Amino acid sequence: MRPSGRTPDQMRQLTFEPGFTRHAEGSCLVSFGDTRVLVTASVDEKVPPFLRGKGQGWVTAEYGMLPRATHTRGNREAAKGKQSGRTQEIQRLIGRSLRAVVDLQKLGERQIIVDCDVIQADGGTRTASISGAWVALRIAVNKLLEAKAIAVDPIRTQVAAVSCGIHQGTAVLDLDYEEDSSAGSDGNFVLTADGAIVEAQVTAEGETYDEEGLLRLLRLARIGCSEIFEAQRKAVGQ
Amino acid sequence: MRPSGRTPDQMRQLTFEPGFTRHAEGSCLVSFGDTRVLVTASVDEKVPPFLRGKGQGWVTAEYGMLPRATHTRGNREAAKGKQSGRTQEIQRLIGRSLRAVVDLQKLGERQIIVDCDVIQADGGTRTASISGAWVALRIAVNKLLEAKAIAVDPIRTQVAAVSCGIHQGTAVLDLDYEEDSSAGSDGNFVLTADGAIVEAQVTAEGETYDEEGLLRLLRLARIGCSEIFEAQRKAVGQ
Amino acid sequence: MRPSGRTPDQMRQLTFEPGFTRHAEGSCLVSFGDTRVLVTASVDEKVPPFLRGKGQGWVTAEYGMLPRATHTRGNREAAKGKQSGRTQEIQRLIGRSLRAVVDLQKLGERQIIVDCDVIQADGGTRTASISGAWVALRIAVNKLLEAKAIAVDPIRTQVAAVSCGIHQGTAVLDLDYEEDSSAGSDGNFVLTADGAIVEAQVTAEGETYDEEGLLRLLRLARIGCSEIFEAQRKAVGQ
Amino acid sequence: MRPSGRTPDQMRQLTFEPGFTRHAEGSCLVSFGDTRVLVTASVDEKVPPFLRGKGQGWVTAEYGMLPRATHTRGNREAAKGKQSGRTQEIQRLIGRSLRAVVDLQKLGERQIIVDCDVIQADGGTRTASISGAWVALRIAVNKLLEAKAIAVDPIRTQVAAVSCGIHQGTAVLDLDYEEDSSAGSDGNFVLTADGAIVEAQVTAEGETYDEEGLLRLLRLARIGCSEIFEAQRKAVGQ
Amino acid sequence: MRPSGRTPDQMRQLTFEPGFTRHAEGSCLVSFGDTRVLVTASVDEKVPPFLRGKGQGWVTAEYGMLPRATHTRGNREAAKGKQSGRTQEIQRLIGRSLRAVVDLQKLGERQIIVDCDVIQADGGTRTASISGAWVALRIAVNKLLEAKAIAVDPIRTQVAAVSCGIHQGTAVLDLDYEEDSSAGSDGNFVLTADGAIVEAQVTAEGETYDEEGLLRLLRLARIGCSEIFEAQRKAVGQ
Amino acid sequence: MRPSGRTPDQMRQLTFEPGFTRHAEGSCLVSFGDTRVLVTASVDEKVPPFLRGKGQGWVTAEYGMLPRATHTRGNREAAKGKQSGRTQEIQRLIGRSLRAVVDLQKLGERQIIVDCDVIQADGGTRTASISGAWVALRIAVNKLLEAKAIAVDPIRTQVAAVSCGIHQGTAVLDLDYEEDSSAGSDGNFVLTADGAIVEAQVTAEGETYDEEGLLRLLRLARIGCSEIFEAQRKAVGQ
Repeated sequence: MRPSGRTPDQMRQLTFEPGFTRHAEGSCLVSFGDTRVLVTASVDEKVPPFLRGKGQGWVTAEYGMLPRATHTRGNREAAKGKQSGRTQEIQRLIGRSLRAVVDLQKLGERQIIVDCDVIQADGGTRTASISGAWVALRIAVNKLLEAKAIAVDPIRTQVAAVSCGIHQGTAVLDLDYEEDSSAGSDGNFVLTADGAIVEAQVTAEGETYDEEGLLRLLRLARIGCSEIFEAQRKAVGQ
Repeated sequence: MRPSGRTPDQMRQLTFEPGFTRHAEGSCLVSFGDTRVLVTASVDEKVPPFLRGKGQGWVTAEYGMLPRATHTRGNREAAKGKQSGRTQEIQRLIGRSLRAVVDLQKLGERQIIVDCDVIQADGGTRTASISGAWVALRIAVNKLLEAKAIAVDPIRTQVAAVSCGIHQGTAVLDLDYEEDSSAGSDGNFVLTADGAIVEAQVTAEGETYDEEGLLRLLRLARIGCSEIFEAQRKAVGQ
Repeated sequence: MRPSGRTPDQMRQLTFEPGFTRHAEGSCLVSFGDTRVLVTASVDEKVPPFLRGKGQGWVTAEYGMLPRATHTRGNREAAKGKQSGRTQEIQRLIGRSLRAVVDLQKLGERQIIVDCDVIQADGGTRTASISGAWVALRIAVNKLLEAKAIAVDPIRTQVAAVSCGIHQGTAVLDLDYEEDSSAGSDGNFVLTADGAIVEAQVTAEGETYDEEGLLRLLRLARIGCSEIFEAQRKAVGQ
Repeated sequence: MRPSGRTPDQMRQLTFEPGFTRHAEGSCLVSFGDTRVLVTASVDEKVPPFLRGKGQGWVTAEYGMLPRATHTRGNREAAKGKQSGRTQEIQRLIGRSLRAVVDLQKLGERQIIVDCDVIQADGGTRTASISGAWVALRIAVNKLLEAKAIAVDPIRTQVAAVSCGIHQGTAVLDLDYEEDSSAGSDGNFVLTADGAIVEAQVTAEGETYDEEGLLRLLRLARIGCSEIFEAQRKAVGQ
Repeated sequence: MRPSGRTPDQMRQLTFEPGFTRHAEGSCLVSFGDTRVLVTASVDEKVPPFLRGKGQGWVTAEYGMLPRATHTRGNREAAKGKQSGRTQEIQRLIGRSLRAVVDLQKLGERQIIVDCDVIQADGGTRTASISGAWVALRIAVNKLLEAKAIAVDPIRTQVAAVSCGIHQGTAVLDLDYEEDSSAGSDGNFVLTADGAIVEAQVTAEGETYDEEGLLRLLRLARIGCSEIFEAQRKAVGQ
Repeated sequence: MRPSGRTPDQMRQLTFEPGFTRHAEGSCLVSFGDTRVLVTASVDEKVPPFLRGKGQGWVTAEYGMLPRATHTRGNREAAKGKQSGRTQEIQRLIGRSLRAVVDLQKLGERQIIVDCDVIQADGGTRTASISGAWVALRIAVNKLLEAKAIAVDPIRTQVAAVSCGIHQGTAVLDLDYEEDSSAGSDGNFVLTADGAIVEAQVTAEGETYDEEGLLRLLRLARIGCSEIFEAQRKAVGQ
């Protein structure tokens, strides 16, 4: 039995609130249970220096956590003067995941910057961020299509992510904080709606795992992502 | 006529959502119209080094703005590696304002850190922060009183803040972004529920002002703060 | 009775030594009693990026305190690698105060950077800085006028600043360090020679204040600034 | 055919030079073809603050790349004043990988810091670092065992890492720079000598992959790691 | 003929104004011609961590230059967030020079921090700093002796510094900015009043030099330092 | 007798391994006994901003020490976020020394960046760096000459450096760590193959020295540099 009473392949309550803030071209408040992340997608009509004049666009992400998103207050990264290794690792993963489903040529010479700010954390902030980021990106790109700034949709398919892990010997889906902090191994899978894998990362925390374990986690991830893909589609009215 | 259609002494729609996040000892989502700030109050059972062993507590504040809280995206302070002068000025003001109504002896040797993070900005983020900070602080201190960690209530009275300014020759209350960016002079007043002034700051932006102007702004501030005090009391069930 | 033996509306000994250093286009050593600030005004024939090509100039300020300007040595900000919130707050105030009396169009596309470095501190370093900054700026602009780099004087009037506060129940003018550290409330007023207010900031430190208190402080500030205006005029031979 | 002429499951020339530097308790120059990393293991008789008094030890890693280890010179991180997200991601992975095979209780209250500095880079610097780090750690721990500072060997088994990827449709082992920069997907596997997985990370770079692809890469990784384990044992005389 | 009309072995006008500021235990405004440096010596009754409990004291120095001390304004190091290599090189030299004439055992477990801030620069700021630093240190130590905080004088002798260089083929003493920027080689000598050398640094700038050149510069330095020693003695009433 | 058994004028075993790494245009592993420094010379076809369009080139250097190059591990400068004063002092010296023998006009508008990274430290890292830097620079410039990117050799002569010091009353050459940490005075001399002095720096560490001492050290330096010049020539096949 999981601490939350969920079955091993049961996701937490999943919600996407599109348009949560009004200035961003796309925005969304995503909740995976008590984990809540505010995602905005900002369109910038300039590309970063390394892409200037190459006729293609860029999608990148930044990630942050409000100091008291967590059980005990963490130091504010702006006050410390630097982003932690964990923050940088997560924002690199979000950016890579989004770019895997975007045709950067079709986006044209513009950049979309996705900001994922964790309002409340209860495990799985990076997977909620990626899943919500797709929604914010979809909304922002829809505006560009409506405004005829882009001729052809650059988003090839949906992308979503979910965590899985081995908790007390059982492979479980979408770990909350309590499970996450005691899991033997845990990982994050980033999948596309057409069944492909964008990123698989599984780490042994205390206990190593084997090929069979890896595959079981991947299968759970497929179950979780199906549910997320459906919720994403509803959120963007697709 | 004001751009929003409000009368000169009319506040924007004012709401406090106490308990917006679950980990912090006190929290509140405050809205002054489209300006929305998430405030959390975290109790830390240690005081900063300069107060160790002095038998008194401390209240301090940190302030931040999500990169796309604004009309165009601003750079993330954590990524730039430093907080702007504006950020530091605001967080110092919030901390001073709260300490003006707290008896630090009665708080005991503990610190309350108030985090004000702007989710959406439309003028008046510092005054919304101060007003919401009192609500989060009140909730956190109530928990300490209930848990009998504190014997006597250290909060002497309410504190709230509102901006006022001279816009196209008229003194107006609670400026939104459009008014704020074109006001001749504007200021912020921090007042207590028993009628005293904690802080008055009025700055000429382009046009100087006179004593009569200063007093007119102060009188508007009193009107605005009365309304805020009432909303604060409702929010904390007082 | 004030610790220094002054009457409540008595300024400290006030001196401006124009031309204290030789490289700057304008310079001045200003003393408000034992508070001494070296101010230089440097003309830069480029404007900051946000103003390029707009046909107007800019005036900005930086502030610093030598490590042993104070009773006990403070850490050097250059060694710590960042400027404190207090430093940034003060330098923003100095810049705003000067811009309030300068017509930036008439200045032309150039920037004047005013550096205020506190050699010795005894309360009122920001008000001495503002008052001395006007002298250094006036001298630098006179040179531009003499050299015919500017056709019409861009400085509209004088600007000066003075601190006032409530010390042991009495409103007093131009607080020294001893009064400043025990004042119930204290503030800074930035006024122009034609009687207008540029900035009013009054903060309760331990004791709140009321409208009557605010006005009494403003009246004291008028007395102090008259005296400063006269000394400024003498210093620049006006 | 691979650019280097290797078969798909062929590792590059693999060498470990133990004792490459003389001050460190353990050291090793590891080469995976033209990728050369200098690894040192330093024993520190103090643990980091979060572990003080808990009766257990710690193993951590830092990673760096000499500015001209690469084809074109990169900026020196010490001069830029911060470590890149990539650097932090890699050093976190090295530390986690080593801790997966160390019993921190048996290590006692001391820390081993492993420094991995890339002398020359040609793809696979993180996997060479992990593989060499085990050798340096083994040597350092052997010294502690010989000196009877530790009673029981805290190292449970060997750990090694290798990269695999899909290059022009073929799954290949131990990618060099040329393959790495054009691979459709690539990943890193960290395995133990007793057959378990410590970390699997596979990222789609341009092309997504499927379950079958993931398994093929894992099988290649097993082939590569067997070879590394044997070379490690020779290097430490086991 | 030198640009200033001085003879090759002629120092600029040399003045020491002891007690220039009032808070520091020792202070001095030193002028070497138009180069003016404000030096303060601050007594701190704690030693730095690496000396705690060792029964000896420490003398250290910090150096800074006001932004407009120079012909054209330089950026403020506090605003840039770091001290330049030049600044660090100079402050290390000042500290070493002072420690060469102080018996750190006799100083007792306390630290004297000497701050050298350049008010106006015209070449030779580091040599003026060292020469003035001795005066400030002497005054501060005299106070400690008078207060009987120290039993025996820890200052063994005087220390002073002067620059010399080869300018248009001639060896000249105490270079001003104009000479300094066009000298073929130039150096700084730190000497003690009893004839010993503390530090010699001679750098070829464009033209190398030979042994004879080195000796000629050293002889000039002896002439200059004699004059400085006499002025130092007068300044401290010795 | 010296701790190493060397005679006072005996250098440590001296080796240059040219071409130690393959990506850099020039590289060399230099050893002065147990001090080993990896030097690379990188050709950059752009000059720094202050030289753009002036028709001349630039040579600069950066220096670093691997954390465990030393007896006890030092903190990594990239992790601390800044380079120490010592690091900056050394890299400035290396750059100046190289520029003293290069005709920057003949180099053309390009920059050569020399990186000196200390693999293992046993005293004399800066002198080994300078001596090895010349070898790496020579190799890189030879490539430019062979490629006819440069018409005329811009390197005028060889440059080398060696440390000397007074250890237990005796002037000794090429100090190792043990001698260096107990020397009364010590210095570094940078000399050219045609007998000129580029830089002389002699510092009293505990004991001052006199003119005779300075000359004795210089003479030892000449002996040491002769040996280095010969080894340099062999290394580059001259």
